[in-house]
Amino acid sequence: MKMFWPPVFTGVTSSHQPCEQTDQQERGRSLAVTMERLEKQVQFVIEIDKLKQVVRQTLLTDASRLENSAEHSWHIAAMAILLHEYAAERDIDVFRVVKMLLIHDLVEIDAGDTYCYDIEGHADKAQREQAAADRIFNILPADQAVELRALWDEFERGQTPESRFAAALDRLQPLIHNYTTGGKMWQHHGVKKDLVVARNRHMELGAPTLWKYAAKLIDDAVAGNMLWE
Amino acid sequence: MKMFWPPVFTGVTSSHQPCEQTDQQERGRSLAVTMERLEKQVQFVIEIDKLKQVVRQTLLTDASRLENSAEHSWHIAAMAILLHEYAAERDIDVFRVVKMLLIHDLVEIDAGDTYCYDIEGHADKAQREQAAADRIFNILPADQAVELRALWDEFERGQTPESRFAAALDRLQPLIHNYTTGGKMWQHHGVKKDLVVARNRHMELGAPTLWKYAAKLIDDAVAGNMLWE
Repeated sequence: MKMFWPPVFTGVTSSHQPCEQTDQQERGRSLAVTMERLEKQVQFVIEIDKLKQVVRQTLLTDASRLENSAEHSWHIAAMAILLHEYAAERDIDVFRVVKMLLIHDLVEIDAGDTYCYDIEGHADKAQREQAAADRIFNILPADQAVELRALWDEFERGQTPESRFAAALDRLQPLIHNYTTGGKMWQHHGVKKDLVVARNRHMELGAPTLWKYAAKLIDDAVAGNMLWE
Repeated sequence: MKMFWPPVFTGVTSSHQPCEQTDQQERGRSLAVTMERLEKQVQFVIEIDKLKQVVRQTLLTDASRLENSAEHSWHIAAMAILLHEYAAERDIDVFRVVKMLLIHDLVEIDAGDTYCYDIEGHADKAQREQAAADRIFNILPADQAVELRALWDEFERGQTPESRFAAALDRLQPLIHNYTTGGKMWQHHGVKKDLVVARNRHMELGAPTLWKYAAKLIDDAVAGNMLWE
C-alpha cells in the first residue's frame, strides 16, 4: 500500500524560492533542505503507525478485545499528566516522562510485544529490541535519531527519577485493566500472585503511593478469586 | 465488567498511619485523603479507556482497518515532539501542545467522532461535545478537571499558537494516511479536492511549512487519481 510514497516534491523543491518561506523557525535554511528533512520525519511518522498493529496481552477495561501498544502508549502518557504528583521525587521533568512513554514501545514494531510474565521471551528481549531501536530511530534526521534513542535508553536503564516513574505507570495501567476485567488474562496465562508482585514491585521506586495502591489491588484480586495465590 | 470496581481500600485508609507515607509530594496530606483523590484519578483513567473504541474515518497506513481515536491521539502527540520546529511561532510550549493532543478527543467517548467532511454532523457537534466535556473532565478531582477543561477549551478555540499548531497536526496526520492508502476513504465518502483544501488550509496558521507540504500532497493525490478534482 506504500506505492504512492514518497511523493515527488519537484514543485516545492525547485521552482519555489526561499523568499516564499514563512516559518520563523525555518529562517536561514533553504526550502529544499527543509523538505528533505521533513520527508525523513514524515517517513518516521508513517513507520510508527505500525505500532497500532502490535497486540498486547492486556484486555480493554470492558474486556471486548486485547489492546495494542499505540493505545497503551497514549493511555500511560495521559496517566503521566494526571498522576505525576505521586512520583517518588519532587520536581521531575514530566514532559520527559511523557516523551519516554510515547516512544518506549516503538521497538516492538520489529521485536514484538514481550508479555511481562513471559520468562522465555525475556531471554533475548534486550537483543531484539536494541536491533529494532537501531533501525527505527535512524529513519529520523540524525539529531532527532540521537534524541529519541537517548530517551529510549533512559527508559530502558531506569536510572533516573523520570524513567522510574514512567516504568511505574507502564506497570500500573495493565494491573488496573487486569483488575477491572476480573483477572481474565492472569487466569488465561496461569499467572499467580507471587509473580505479579515480583514483576510489579519496582513501581515502589518510581511512585511509592501508586505501588501501595497496586499492592492493595493485587490483594483484593486474590481475595476476589481473580488471581491465584 | 466493572463489577470489581471500586476496590474497598479499608486496609489502606484506616489501619495504616500517616507515618507510613513515603512520597515526598504527599507530605502534609493524610493517606485517606490521598487515596480518595487517587480513586477519582483512577476512575478517570478507566473512563478514558473507552476512547480506544471510538472509530475514526481514517485507515491505518497499510489500509488493514480504520483507526481509533486513542491511537490517533498517540500518533499526533508523537508528531508534536517530532515536528514542533515547523510551528508558526517560535518558542511555543510543546508540552502544552502534547497535553492538548492527548486529551483533545476525549469528548468523543460520549459525542462520537464527527468525520471532518460531515457537514450535517458538524451542526450539533459543539453542543454534543460541550456536554461530554462537562461530564468526563468532572470525574477528576476539581483542580485537574479545571486544568484539563481549560486545555480542551484552548484547543477548541484555536486562539493560541499552541492550539493552532496542535490543530495543524490533527489534520496533517489523516491527510498522510489518506495519501499512503491511495485516497480510499476520500473516494469512499465522495470527498473532492476543494473540500479537502477548505477543511485543511487552516493548517497554514499553525504550521505554514506543514501546510505547504500538505498542499503538495493534495495536488499529487489529484494527479494520481486518488482524489477527485
